Amino acid sequence: MAESGPVFELHRGGKMAVRSTVPLSSREDLSRAYTPGVAEVCRAIAANGALAREYTWIGHVVAVVTDGSAVLGLGNIGPRAALPVMEGKAVLFKEFGGVDAVPICLDTQDTDEIVATVVALAPSFGGINLEDIAAPRCFEIERRLDDQLDIPVFHDDQHGTAIVVLAALRNAARLLGRDLGELRVVVSGAGAAGSAVSRMLVAGGVADVVMCDSRGVLGPNRTDLSGEKAALAALTNPRRVGGAIADGLRGADVLIGVSGGTIEESAVAGMRPGGAIFALANPTPEVDPSIAARHAAVIATGRSDYPNQINNVLAFPGVFRGALDAGVSRITAAMKLAAADAIASVVAENLAPDSIVPSPLDPRVAPAVAAAVARAARGPVGHD
Amino acid sequence: MAESGPVFELHRGGKMAVRSTVPLSSREDLSRAYTPGVAEVCRAIAANGALAREYTWIGHVVAVVTDGSAVLGLGNIGPRAALPVMEGKAVLFKEFGGVDAVPICLDTQDTDEIVATVVALAPSFGGINLEDIAAPRCFEIERRLDDQLDIPVFHDDQHGTAIVVLAALRNAARLLGRDLGELRVVVSGAGAAGSAVSRMLVAGGVADVVMCDSRGVLGPNRTDLSGEKAALAALTNPRRVGGAIADGLRGADVLIGVSGGTIEESAVAGMRPGGAIFALANPTPEVDPSIAARHAAVIATGRSDYPNQINNVLAFPGVFRGALDAGVSRITAAMKLAAADAIASVVAENLAPDSIVPSPLDPRVAPAVAAAVARAARGPVGHD
Repeated sequence: MAESGPVFELHRGGKMAVRSTVPLSSREDLSRAYTPGVAEVCRAIAANGALAREYTWIGHVVAVVTDGSAVLGLGNIGPRAALPVMEGKAVLFKEFGGVDAVPICLDTQDTDEIVATVVALAPSFGGINLEDIAAPRCFEIERRLDDQLDIPVFHDDQHGTAIVVLAALRNAARLLGRDLGELRVVVSGAGAAGSAVSRMLVAGGVADVVMCDSRGVLGPNRTDLSGEKAALAALTNPRRVGGAIADGLRGADVLIGVSGGTIEESAVAGMRPGGAIFALANPTPEVDPSIAARHAAVIATGRSDYPNQINNVLAFPGVFRGALDAGVSRITAAMKLAAADAIASVVAENLAPDSIVPSPLDPRVAPAVAAAVARAARGPVGHD
Repeated sequence: MAESGPVFELHRGGKMAVRSTVPLSSREDLSRAYTPGVAEVCRAIAANGALAREYTWIGHVVAVVTDGSAVLGLGNIGPRAALPVMEGKAVLFKEFGGVDAVPICLDTQDTDEIVATVVALAPSFGGINLEDIAAPRCFEIERRLDDQLDIPVFHDDQHGTAIVVLAALRNAARLLGRDLGELRVVVSGAGAAGSAVSRMLVAGGVADVVMCDSRGVLGPNRTDLSGEKAALAALTNPRRVGGAIADGLRGADVLIGVSGGTIEESAVAGMRPGGAIFALANPTPEVDPSIAARHAAVIATGRSDYPNQINNVLAFPGVFRGALDAGVSRITAAMKLAAADAIASVVAENLAPDSIVPSPLDPRVAPAVAAAVARAARGPVGHD
């Protein structure tokens, strides 16, 4: 393959740069920004570490950390090949959230080493956005970092996706005249995204979530489950359904595909008519939108060339902007639910089957999400 | 101490930001810079890792890495308090060398952990600038990283200082009508800077270097030397001088202070008249310039308020710019010598006792250094 054409031209030299926000053109500038003046600031932070948030860039910079093990739909392509994605993510952070971001691609795929590395470099950043790290190690990495660090840690493939899915589902339910709590939802895929989507839906009030992986429903008949999948099986599936995905889908209102596979039309045909299908795999949705349209009233994909794109950029810039503004040490379930509500609210006045989520370019989204996250950080009204 | 005044105001919010170098305002922009377009670039790099230099920002970005153990004259203030210095360094990289730089302050002062962390994050960067890491572990860290990584590693406190000192000494010798090779030079201080300065002077042709630490001359009587200091004692001191610094200075032409202590006038008085004193400790030079003026013809300090400021900013931006432009995997002695020559050459036409080095703001310096380093990387003329 030749490296040519407009995409390669765009990426030549990378997609980002740093810049100074202070003047550096006179000796006096230098002596303030650097030695000897800077020593005053160093001494103040040494005496009171909290001042680092005020007098360094950590108040507005996050690391976008990957091990290159699960990049887009490309799989385990390693840290160097992952860098163009992480740079892209970093510039989206800046463009939409005003958050500075630095791509950190790690030359290790060992859980302990990843945790140790991120803990070691954490003083340089105000937050850690984990990205494209394969399941199941992404769960342990996030949990351990969340425990060890006093800055927010957020695995976007999990929670960014989950936030936008919940936002979309809220608006789909509204449009369909249904309560979120009464919907039967099937999540196909039990990796990073599927796990977080299911947990978020349960936290958001969906009582009946059934999860499937490539072997079928996570249910009572499964003797092969451990770790995160066992925990998910216990958290979901209140009707104790078993069998294949077709069994899970029988009578379901909503299908959420985050698996990357294909779901047969015969399985989808068992859903209750007039529901919703979110087929989010890229570039090939689990259910082709033309097929989905025969079985559901509202359809969403992960693609920009169909309506209702479930795009994480609706969540992560505002989530971190809000978390940094509020100075939180972790991103809680309440903040994620608030973020989903905020995204849904942006288009609530103009709901239609082809606009249940805002456009990824809608400039109202990130500020709304940031404000909602910061509000959630301050706690329920009357309790702070 | 109140955190107020112009210095704190300048540092509020930190001193740097990132920016996108690609357009992000339309759906088409997004689909090229991020998914799905970016996948093409990822695939190309996965197939040929060398393309990362071309299609990511690693061709122009370095990490400024510290453990906060030897920051300015402040000592071991830790990673958070070191960050204002590293941000300052990063913006100087950009301002003078056009090199993007990211501060990485590590929450560990363990040699193995520092090495492991930097190795792990190296795929994200085109070079590693080590900064303000205490001796002697800085020597081992640099050596191991240099061995393990295929990108340039440069401990600025060592080599940046050494390059500028050699440049200054070349011009001082020219001004004094002396050959570099015939000068007797005493280096006071055997830490990171003293070690590198002495090695560089020897590599640059100074035959008679005598080093001192707080216990006196590194010489034949010393039974307490090991590691780097033992190696330095073997490399220097060809006349096998012993005793205190006053003994080392007797008849010396040049004193280079990189110790941070004070050197008594009685010791300096033993130098051969008409030589040079570089007293580089900040903010208090080892020999006050007014005292030095009684015993030497050329005087340099580390301070911006005296003539002849020995400032690393004359070296590091151009060194990395040249190394990145040439795509070298390490910064060799030949490149460092070439950098020193280039710095000296900038003011060679207008030599005077108060201008043996260019101003830190002189815009001719970094391009000259970069060109010299890149030339040295291509090897001696006729041998490439």
